Amino acid sequence: LRVKAGFDPTAPDLHLGHTVLLQKLRQFQLLGHQVIFLIGDFTALIGDPTGKNETRPPLSPEAILKNAETYKEQVFKILDPEKTEVRFNSEWMGKMTAADMIRLAARYTVARILERDDFAKRYKEQRPIAVHEFLYPLVQGWDSVALKADVEVGGTDQKFNLLVGRELQKEEKQRAQCVITVPLLEGLDGVNKMSKSLGNYIGITEPANDIFGKVMSISDELMIRYYELVSDVDTERFEAIKRGEVHPKEAKEALAVELVTRFHGEEAGKDALENFRSVFSRGETPEEVPEVTVARSVEPVWLPKLLQEQGLVKSTSEGRRLIQQGGLSIDGEKVAEETHDFIGVSEALLKAGKRKFLRVRFS
Amino acid sequence: LRVKAGFDPTAPDLHLGHTVLLQKLRQFQLLGHQVIFLIGDFTALIGDPTGKNETRPPLSPEAILKNAETYKEQVFKILDPEKTEVRFNSEWMGKMTAADMIRLAARYTVARILERDDFAKRYKEQRPIAVHEFLYPLVQGWDSVALKADVEVGGTDQKFNLLVGRELQKEEKQRAQCVITVPLLEGLDGVNKMSKSLGNYIGITEPANDIFGKVMSISDELMIRYYELVSDVDTERFEAIKRGEVHPKEAKEALAVELVTRFHGEEAGKDALENFRSVFSRGETPEEVPEVTVARSVEPVWLPKLLQEQGLVKSTSEGRRLIQQGGLSIDGEKVAEETHDFIGVSEALLKAGKRKFLRVRFS
Repeated sequence: LRVKAGFDPTAPDLHLGHTVLLQKLRQFQLLGHQVIFLIGDFTALIGDPTGKNETRPPLSPEAILKNAETYKEQVFKILDPEKTEVRFNSEWMGKMTAADMIRLAARYTVARILERDDFAKRYKEQRPIAVHEFLYPLVQGWDSVALKADVEVGGTDQKFNLLVGRELQKEEKQRAQCVITVPLLEGLDGVNKMSKSLGNYIGITEPANDIFGKVMSISDELMIRYYELVSDVDTERFEAIKRGEVHPKEAKEALAVELVTRFHGEEAGKDALENFRSVFSRGETPEEVPEVTVARSVEPVWLPKLLQEQGLVKSTSEGRRLIQQGGLSIDGEKVAEETHDFIGVSEALLKAGKRKFLRVRFS
Repeated sequence: LRVKAGFDPTAPDLHLGHTVLLQKLRQFQLLGHQVIFLIGDFTALIGDPTGKNETRPPLSPEAILKNAETYKEQVFKILDPEKTEVRFNSEWMGKMTAADMIRLAARYTVARILERDDFAKRYKEQRPIAVHEFLYPLVQGWDSVALKADVEVGGTDQKFNLLVGRELQKEEKQRAQCVITVPLLEGLDGVNKMSKSLGNYIGITEPANDIFGKVMSISDELMIRYYELVSDVDTERFEAIKRGEVHPKEAKEALAVELVTRFHGEEAGKDALENFRSVFSRGETPEEVPEVTVARSVEPVWLPKLLQEQGLVKSTSEGRRLIQQGGLSIDGEKVAEETHDFIGVSEALLKAGKRKFLRVRFS
């Protein structure tokens, strides 16, 4: 089977949310099928012609190729390159004339396109829909015709567009593709969709320890959801976790190991587990602690300022709260005062909250 | 000024209705301006891609060129060829890519296009609108940009499309064209829009006597309307006719002479008037009467059948009614009976109604 999935060639920085779909593609590959990783460069070359969306400037062919390379580096952490065909839809869309586009547009009615959930909502709320937005689902559908896709996988929000592909294929006397939608993954907050801009994400190129720590930080409820959508565990194990027969901490560690292994290899998975346990479970200092060197001061240091300058807190007021709540320790001792005397000290180990360490050297 | 008017290159068979607009263009020419006679061949090449409208098959470039020639023959009865630029919009639209079309489509919102009267009506009545129909007003508007039109003239039903041209020109930093709409001319029945398919039209290539006769057949009320929309008489004369200060028969004759002169020249205008007067005003037989030869019969002839066979009436029942109402005369004598004895007669002049003559020869 030819299994198609489309990707936007802008700003590739894949996170766990994207992997729900990539895992589904991977499953097809394990069953021997061919995946078509389609990069929608045709529309990216156009950008947002209304100019209203400044985050969608037209991309140059060079930028698109560069993004495509970055994509490949990331997706091949999950997909098998041998069973993946990377294609660009400019290959066929770039040859299309305005007359062809008009003929394509003639195949759908306005009423049917307005049925798409987001269009229906915007039209009802009298928010503008530019006419070209009606053409994009048709372009996406035509991609399925050009690729002779048997299956198309996309997010639940893509359902309408995937179905357009079916209809155009039928009209072209092809067998209509099957469509599969995958749910959107919630971010670390368990509420919003995982996204880079909301900062609630696990990037698939993040360092192993960061991925591990982030997985450990999610709620028990969200863990079940992540198991469902991104883990490869079998149904029996999943059901056991769901029923609470596995201790949540153990289950989370197993998930964290699974994900780190997926993105960084087996060794990295084991190391990250060990590192996590040594730091958090046993309360020890991790093996690798970031270090900074600051100018030696003859005055006592105002700690909230130091914490903020070194990025351990976002603001001095957050630093003050941290100290008030007993969240800061220096060389293993809880700190109660906002000012601290480092005179004569050549280095100190700061621990802010549960997981942030910083070794400060005074020059 | 560059004065644009667009014409559909399908089936050119211009009638008086079209000349309302052509006269307006002619007026611009008389004032020294340049007329752009734009043939919308780009969309004609596409035809109706939905296939629902069988009367709009895609035309070949050859057919379009041929139609364009026929157009020219007809429009140059009114327009000055020296001040007319004939253009085809495939010149610029044919070069447009699908990406260009998408960019163009981005300039308008769905809500605004749906404001167009006919779209609003169809959408409300849940009658289908194909997506490409939303693109055609944009194509028409873009034509104005390509032609740098200062003025565009069209039927009242074109108002929305003409205004799209204004907006696109503004966006392209051109001065927005002025738009002029001309009313639709009622047909000979005085009710429906003049159209070939309704048979209520005066074709501009029809024989002089036919044009003359048709003008004479319209109601006094409709005559005022025709004076307003197609005559070149000055306002004073028009007002006098409107106030009934000119006898309707005289006014109609003057209009008929004006139109025949316009389409066939001054001589033809005079001849048609004379011919009309000789036939209808003085009750004489016109100089040229169509003739048929039929087989001599030894039986009396059933006239309704003869009338129908020779095309003077549409059916035998219409023929019977004609006779009952005293509308048929043979050799100048009113006929009361349905059967008539032509034995021993070598020819006879039939007059059906006020204007139809037929000379029948018996062989």
